Amino acid sequence: MNPTEWFTEQAPGAGSAFSLKIKRKLHEEQSDFQFLEIYETEDFGNLMVIDGCTMVSTRDNFFYHEMMSHPVLFTHPNPKRVWIIGGGDCGTLKEVLKHPGVEQVVQIDIDERVTRLAEIYFPELCESNGDPRAELKFIDGIKWVKDAAPGSVDIIIVDSTDPVGPAEGLFGEAFYRDCLNCLSENGMVIQQSESALYHLNLMQAMRGAMSAAGFEHLQTLFFPQCIYPSGWWSATIAGKKTLDGFRQEDSANKPFATEYYNVDIHRAALAQPEFVKRAFGG
Amino acid sequence: MNPTEWFTEQAPGAGSAFSLKIKRKLHEEQSDFQFLEIYETEDFGNLMVIDGCTMVSTRDNFFYHEMMSHPVLFTHPNPKRVWIIGGGDCGTLKEVLKHPGVEQVVQIDIDERVTRLAEIYFPELCESNGDPRAELKFIDGIKWVKDAAPGSVDIIIVDSTDPVGPAEGLFGEAFYRDCLNCLSENGMVIQQSESALYHLNLMQAMRGAMSAAGFEHLQTLFFPQCIYPSGWWSATIAGKKTLDGFRQEDSANKPFATEYYNVDIHRAALAQPEFVKRAFGG
Repeated sequence: MNPTEWFTEQAPGAGSAFSLKIKRKLHEEQSDFQFLEIYETEDFGNLMVIDGCTMVSTRDNFFYHEMMSHPVLFTHPNPKRVWIIGGGDCGTLKEVLKHPGVEQVVQIDIDERVTRLAEIYFPELCESNGDPRAELKFIDGIKWVKDAAPGSVDIIIVDSTDPVGPAEGLFGEAFYRDCLNCLSENGMVIQQSESALYHLNLMQAMRGAMSAAGFEHLQTLFFPQCIYPSGWWSATIAGKKTLDGFRQEDSANKPFATEYYNVDIHRAALAQPEFVKRAFGG
Repeated sequence: MNPTEWFTEQAPGAGSAFSLKIKRKLHEEQSDFQFLEIYETEDFGNLMVIDGCTMVSTRDNFFYHEMMSHPVLFTHPNPKRVWIIGGGDCGTLKEVLKHPGVEQVVQIDIDERVTRLAEIYFPELCESNGDPRAELKFIDGIKWVKDAAPGSVDIIIVDSTDPVGPAEGLFGEAFYRDCLNCLSENGMVIQQSESALYHLNLMQAMRGAMSAAGFEHLQTLFFPQCIYPSGWWSATIAGKKTLDGFRQEDSANKPFATEYYNVDIHRAALAQPEFVKRAFGG
């Protein structure tokens, strides 16, 4: 491979790498927080890279954005107020706003430049940004959650980069305790929890921190995500109340279109592989 | 990346590539049928490559071998006679032999060298080769199926390379018609059917050929497979009789250990993503 024709991300510690063939680099900049690159790829549409890690491609982002949104929204009995911590590409925001019952979505990404670039290079992800229910804030999500009034939100979606750099504080017990405090009665957090094949210890540490913070109910979901390390990703829901079951009838009759998610996929994502069950001790 | 330190497979037409960091090349040879390479990798154990495509790694082969075996074996009401067409690394054979009810397994791989190399470099996959129920043949699987007596087998597992080169004839209507002819009353074929993200048209063509050959019942299963293109793989079952339901209680009480498969994973693998449903027209 000619390295000038490919963008490659090595998975640290996993001895693997994933590459996308590029037509050209469309943009790069050092924002106040991270190094941002946009490529036009051969077959994946546009690609956003943050600090050397693939974040979102036109072609396959639907897996991640749908699975960070619809399972938790159909698990909560009646979600009205949603916060997205991170999520600056606005893909998760778009999915959340598909739920007619949602009354307010606040997206809190520390780096405004991510959103400004998404508006240019991923306009389809930003098409709901003008929804009157949506509010975009460019401030520190950790502080936002810390300062929030108790019971002020129903669902917190932590749609962040990996637990190094600016996102590190989003993976710790102190942050989860602040989440617990500002969640309403049936409140839930969902956070991306990396690959079970590559990062099982990280997943376990994250679940441990969520439990230690006082979340008694945890649920890890699995789904494909081609451009992320190992191609197999996960998200973990932490709930104040039981996470057993979800609004299956509402899911089956969802009044919006998706590419990956449906009621069967929701059930399927909850299945725990044998080696994961053993690791989680159940 | 220094190309001498990595093995890289480009996914043709998908504009992506997957690489594994290698310590050294352990072996290479041109067999009568294909070019075989064995690498020692940094984090994936040993890796077998056939004609430039990753086939099996020590670390992640369990996904594929378990999902090519247990779902179809627990879908058939009472499988006793199983043929594996291809499968020369013997990983599928090992999984099939875990089922106590299976009385005979014939593995038919055209290339004996694949098995001889697996015995050296993947001994854990070959540990059941001495089972008295197992028979290893190194002949043409297409001819084997064509010449077989009607009703002589319960399950045919087509564990082949991609539909180019020696495996091409395993993906066509004529082959499926021969399979149908030699299957017993409740007979089933299962075959790897590539990635829904990358090869949906191939998957559709394969399903079309199975239907045209006379299989009225089809079922495509999905599972992660890190080293295969897109990291998300599939297998398709074609049945003479209905494929609705499977022996869930037997699966839940399986008398053997697995790494990925269990009864929940079996159900989960059957869930069809929205874009796949649309492509399959239902």
